[in-house]
Amino acid sequence: MSVLVVGSIAYDGIEAPAGKVDRTLGGSATYISVAAAYFARPVRLVGTVGSDFDKKDLKFLKDHGVDLEGFRTDESGLTFFWKGKYHDDMNSRETLDTQLNVFEHFDPVIPEVYKGSRIVCLGNIDPVLQLKVLDQITQAQLTVCDTMNFWISGAREALEEVISRVDVLIVNDEEARELTGESNLIKAAKIIREKGPKYLIIKKGEHGAFLYSEQSVFAAPAYPLSTIIDPTGAGDTFMGGFAGWLSWSDRISEENLRRAVIYGSVMASYCVEKFGVERLTALNRFEIDRRYDAFRKMSVIPERT
Amino acid sequence: MSVLVVGSIAYDGIEAPAGKVDRTLGGSATYISVAAAYFARPVRLVGTVGSDFDKKDLKFLKDHGVDLEGFRTDESGLTFFWKGKYHDDMNSRETLDTQLNVFEHFDPVIPEVYKGSRIVCLGNIDPVLQLKVLDQITQAQLTVCDTMNFWISGAREALEEVISRVDVLIVNDEEARELTGESNLIKAAKIIREKGPKYLIIKKGEHGAFLYSEQSVFAAPAYPLSTIIDPTGAGDTFMGGFAGWLSWSDRISEENLRRAVIYGSVMASYCVEKFGVERLTALNRFEIDRRYDAFRKMSVIPERT
Repeated sequence: MSVLVVGSIAYDGIEAPAGKVDRTLGGSATYISVAAAYFARPVRLVGTVGSDFDKKDLKFLKDHGVDLEGFRTDESGLTFFWKGKYHDDMNSRETLDTQLNVFEHFDPVIPEVYKGSRIVCLGNIDPVLQLKVLDQITQAQLTVCDTMNFWISGAREALEEVISRVDVLIVNDEEARELTGESNLIKAAKIIREKGPKYLIIKKGEHGAFLYSEQSVFAAPAYPLSTIIDPTGAGDTFMGGFAGWLSWSDRISEENLRRAVIYGSVMASYCVEKFGVERLTALNRFEIDRRYDAFRKMSVIPERT
Repeated sequence: MSVLVVGSIAYDGIEAPAGKVDRTLGGSATYISVAAAYFARPVRLVGTVGSDFDKKDLKFLKDHGVDLEGFRTDESGLTFFWKGKYHDDMNSRETLDTQLNVFEHFDPVIPEVYKGSRIVCLGNIDPVLQLKVLDQITQAQLTVCDTMNFWISGAREALEEVISRVDVLIVNDEEARELTGESNLIKAAKIIREKGPKYLIIKKGEHGAFLYSEQSVFAAPAYPLSTIIDPTGAGDTFMGGFAGWLSWSDRISEENLRRAVIYGSVMASYCVEKFGVERLTALNRFEIDRRYDAFRKMSVIPERT
């Protein structure tokens, strides 16, 4: 199944206890596409960059198998730039600089050939733009949406409409609580699912993720990493692995959604092992599958005796 | 296999968002024994109470199947009393009152017939007392130990000796970090296991628990409860379910340890549904097994396609 990805493409500056990088390819659409492209064909990227976008980054995306018909270069300005710093425990980060640049005027125009995409990934951007995307697509089997606190507090009305129209919402535990005013995640999940999404994924960072559906709750563990270099993009990468694998499997079922959550977790666990997308540029399906099996092994509860 | 439980027996006063109780049976040894007695025979309790200990509580323990040859009534004073208050999110609690009373002079003397107990549960008490217990037992197949921050900072040397001598250490994530000075749990687990315990269980409250052994890591989910009335004793109850089920299974193996972690989690999930030990007084094996199966269902990662 084809995968459409809409989101930001950026350059990131990242400071973390393990070191720093001044400028590396980032943005939600980048992480999602790069992760999804390990599984899905075609992966169609809609995003905008500025005049400073590096040809080698463009080449990387192309060589990695990302379809760039929806990729736009806006020569009137520079690429979105974000700079952040992670503190010692890696659980808190501070934004040091945000330059929206050409991303400020991003208007997602979906190319005709992309409109029939079967799986649609709405990266974490203004919900008003996410709605514009939903208005243009025609044959989606599964729409998957990410968001963040910034939009929950700042663009609530549009976000509520997005939530009422998508099939899968992906948020973290804090966002689920903020979205509902309910501190208990089980109750929060129920409230969110009643807003529309058939499936809800609540990510809990180092504590794994929950997948809630009509039929069941699935508790996915996180991969126990002894070293985390850079968490940037891990959530987007999760979405890319999730949507990409589902696309590859060619069937949306309860069982496959569980597998997809684990493939999303696998990709996210690789993502954080190096700065930026670096670790995601040179994986192979064999090692991805091996880590999937490690997740399984770690989670097996034997039958009762 | 016989189970020996050594710890505190107390009366607790508990305030929580859901209500309050002025005086209810509590203490680590109580919760451990009551949970273990659903599986194991005999469950042998070593603890001390004061002159105010209620006959109906004694009758309850007896009727529940707890062997009380090691139970002592010290007429010179009152039973250990603790009073605490849980805040809205249930994750933080405040101690309002602690009256050690006769527990201050608790000296665990293990009755002759108890010394050959096969599974030994050291509840969360002064590690100096835990060592005294270890010195008296002769045929333990598995020693299981709980502790808390108070002893990590206040009785470090004795605690390190306990840790070097037990088979299973059970701590929560904060305690694991404090014990090692290492914020990453994987690294902390490695450091702790090098101190001696063959198995380490790190409890993460609503995020489940990890079981670390030589061979593997097991990630157990927590049961998704929409209402938590009173978390008091949940950790002790976990230990009781863990040790009790292992005793019932009659075989210490990697697979059975995983099952035991889930049975511990099942019992803890019941414990928090009502105040004090109330929910633990009227369970049956059928509903316990049903919840075990719910844990399994929630955790199943399908094989790769």
